[in-house]
Amino acid sequence: MRHIKLTVAYDGTDYCGWQVQPNGLSVQEVLNRALTNLLGRETKTTGASRTDSGVHALGNVAVFTTDARMDAERFAFALNTYLPEDIKIQKSEEVPAEFHPRFAETKKTYEYVILCRTFPDPTRRRNSLFCYEPLDIEDMRQALSMLIGEHDFRSFQGAGGEASVKTTVRTIEQAEIFCESEQQEEEKAFRNGVVRIRLTGNGFLYHMVRIIVGTLLEIGKGQRSASEMQAILDACNRETAGATAPAHGLTLLGIRYPEWEA
Amino acid sequence: MRHIKLTVAYDGTDYCGWQVQPNGLSVQEVLNRALTNLLGRETKTTGASRTDSGVHALGNVAVFTTDARMDAERFAFALNTYLPEDIKIQKSEEVPAEFHPRFAETKKTYEYVILCRTFPDPTRRRNSLFCYEPLDIEDMRQALSMLIGEHDFRSFQGAGGEASVKTTVRTIEQAEIFCESEQQEEEKAFRNGVVRIRLTGNGFLYHMVRIIVGTLLEIGKGQRSASEMQAILDACNRETAGATAPAHGLTLLGIRYPEWEA
Repeated sequence: MRHIKLTVAYDGTDYCGWQVQPNGLSVQEVLNRALTNLLGRETKTTGASRTDSGVHALGNVAVFTTDARMDAERFAFALNTYLPEDIKIQKSEEVPAEFHPRFAETKKTYEYVILCRTFPDPTRRRNSLFCYEPLDIEDMRQALSMLIGEHDFRSFQGAGGEASVKTTVRTIEQAEIFCESEQQEEEKAFRNGVVRIRLTGNGFLYHMVRIIVGTLLEIGKGQRSASEMQAILDACNRETAGATAPAHGLTLLGIRYPEWEA
Repeated sequence: MRHIKLTVAYDGTDYCGWQVQPNGLSVQEVLNRALTNLLGRETKTTGASRTDSGVHALGNVAVFTTDARMDAERFAFALNTYLPEDIKIQKSEEVPAEFHPRFAETKKTYEYVILCRTFPDPTRRRNSLFCYEPLDIEDMRQALSMLIGEHDFRSFQGAGGEASVKTTVRTIEQAEIFCESEQQEEEKAFRNGVVRIRLTGNGFLYHMVRIIVGTLLEIGKGQRSASEMQAILDACNRETAGATAPAHGLTLLGIRYPEWEA
């Protein structure tokens, strides 16, 4: 049997998340059906990251096995003809049988997009969070920098995530905030433009990115000081962190597998 | 009676266009209903630009009359609470009774977005045209420059537009192509990134922007030479121009009224 790795992009708006579940239509279910139709036999994928309902991806990863003889890179083109417009494969490649998309060592990169404006922009509503209040970007950057490195991120784990993890220690390797201002302005009161919060790490707890972003938003709006981030991290208590930011601003940009890269 | 000018943004995907019509739900119909609900009496708008089905706007303009005493700039906030997520007012202001959004002298700016990639990006599918073939941006720029100025644009008028205009002479004041490459590459074969075609003029014929873009795409793909654009313009014959590009890549960025600006 051959093992094929897929890089999957989707607009998560109309799905109940990545993972197959009884209560709604998931991205994985639609992908499995497309594969089954393409290959003419029941085929299931193993996914790398169980993105929440409403979260998007440019590079989630899934693997399936097949005895089909198609060139590995052609699966992407063939499969896309069976997929709806809001799910499209970006790459297909053969991997060794030992490759497991979830248990292998990974570097995942997420991006959360905030649109600072006086009025919501309907053309960008599906992929960004509308924010009316001005944000203090420098305070947000200072707070975010405290999270870089290996830490116990228990304060940023959503309720319901405890059962599925052995440890709440994770490493955030990179954490940056990019601004694209629509006007010349200071970063003490960012009012008009796009704010992108980008995090790369070896793994993220349930709702971790969204709780980090929710906390940063409270800091950016001046409801909390930047220095509180350290106390929140140290507390190892979900109640000390901010609200969970809405799903629709979040996109899984990509997953790298350092052990498997040439 | 007071005259209120609205700047209207919308994601046109799920509408049959701006203009009220019997066959489907239009942006204007939803706006009129929201106004009627807000003001407590039947209220209708007069629009500036009848965007096609599937075309988006960040700054279309509509005017209504009312005797409501609300501060003019508050109408935007109030009306947005009655509007769906895919239509949002960006500004409301009082204008003189003589201001007519369609008959006044205008400068309209449209942007057409093309996404050059090997595979479609589902998260940007609603607001951009996916293009698999590499584009020669320099050829497209050369061709586009021939359209700047006052010309008879009859070759770029879609079938069905003849009845509603007295003349097919229009002036394109600005015409530019911006590229945001995802990789370092030459503009002879633009393969990965966003291409934005932006046109500003005193008015556009029915389907004119989309036919210009369709023609530029054929030039960019090498199916026609850049120099053909002059012959197409001179021919004053729709059959000489390229295909009409799909609606979903097009956004009406804004409308300026030079006579009414301070």
